[in-house]
Amino acid sequence: MKDDRYEIRFSGSGGQGIITMAIILAEAVGVYDQKYVCQTQSYGPEARGGTSKAEVVISNKPIDYPKAIKTDLLLAMNQASCNAYCSGLKPQGLLIVDSGFVEQIPFNRAVAIPFTQIAIKELKNQMVANMIALGAIASLSEIVSIKNLEKALKARTPQKTEGINLKALHAGLQSVKQYDITSLPESETSEDEDV
Amino acid sequence: MKDDRYEIRFSGSGGQGIITMAIILAEAVGVYDQKYVCQTQSYGPEARGGTSKAEVVISNKPIDYPKAIKTDLLLAMNQASCNAYCSGLKPQGLLIVDSGFVEQIPFNRAVAIPFTQIAIKELKNQMVANMIALGAIASLSEIVSIKNLEKALKARTPQKTEGINLKALHAGLQSVKQYDITSLPESETSEDEDV
Repeated sequence: MKDDRYEIRFSGSGGQGIITMAIILAEAVGVYDQKYVCQTQSYGPEARGGTSKAEVVISNKPIDYPKAIKTDLLLAMNQASCNAYCSGLKPQGLLIVDSGFVEQIPFNRAVAIPFTQIAIKELKNQMVANMIALGAIASLSEIVSIKNLEKALKARTPQKTEGINLKALHAGLQSVKQYDITSLPESETSEDEDV
Repeated sequence: MKDDRYEIRFSGSGGQGIITMAIILAEAVGVYDQKYVCQTQSYGPEARGGTSKAEVVISNKPIDYPKAIKTDLLLAMNQASCNAYCSGLKPQGLLIVDSGFVEQIPFNRAVAIPFTQIAIKELKNQMVANMIALGAIASLSEIVSIKNLEKALKARTPQKTEGINLKALHAGLQSVKQYDITSLPESETSEDEDV
């Protein structure tokens, strides 16, 4: 974590397990990695189109304002949420999308992975696409220790599905192995470039 | 909701389903009742003693600051969390405790119900004490429609446990039927009485 504040926004459709991802990441970093973390869901008129959004703010210091301001990382599990939240990314931020649901990627620094397709093909269960995405996020952001992410996942998952969720997490870590995000270009457009 | 902002804090031990309560209430009010809602978990040094805390802020207007400032309602599922968060209540606020785990109640406007004991005796499952508490909160606060709370519960609960969770919710509604909170005295001590 370069700066003192790292903001992640998870977004997608209701039913894609968006909030679960955020809670597991927040517990891994806050309880086990022992940083300051705020995890937030907000509901307003914009949240009623079937989209789901959850945020995690991580800091080495107490967090004054717990909602995301300019995100360092956006996960978009569908096109609607990608379109809705992409402009909230920092120019040097990172967009991660499920390439099965997001065709148009309006941001240079992006990684597209078929999370849901991997879940269906490799794990025979569409429901774990969120844990694959969480693995990818952990690997690309390096914001959380994998050991502590596994701990939090176990604490937040019914014992029956622990095995498949852990497999999904590791499939997610593997899925982005070939990506070198330092080589991605910086986005040239930003609505609130510092003066 | 008298004021434009209503703040609820859920607290207890890890494993008591504190965050689940908050998420279900937030979805019921935010998605189905269509108010503005922020639901937050914060993790810092204080969160590492095995206590769990989750907050829901409800408003008719967009919410500027999503964390609880002075709470209207505090649920304390154990003594440690009761002691930790009681001073954050408004003088006219309401404290609800699990009387099986909270013996000392440091606030006048309090309702003590044996949530966990009801869960064990009536529903043969300690795990649904949180849904009983959520039913009690819904009844006493009148902040959410019961129909929409049921909808959110169904959306957030594995189908297998939907039945017992709904039963627990209604046991919670019943458990506080005899309470008239308008008759409770206002707390006379407040750290930040308005000047």
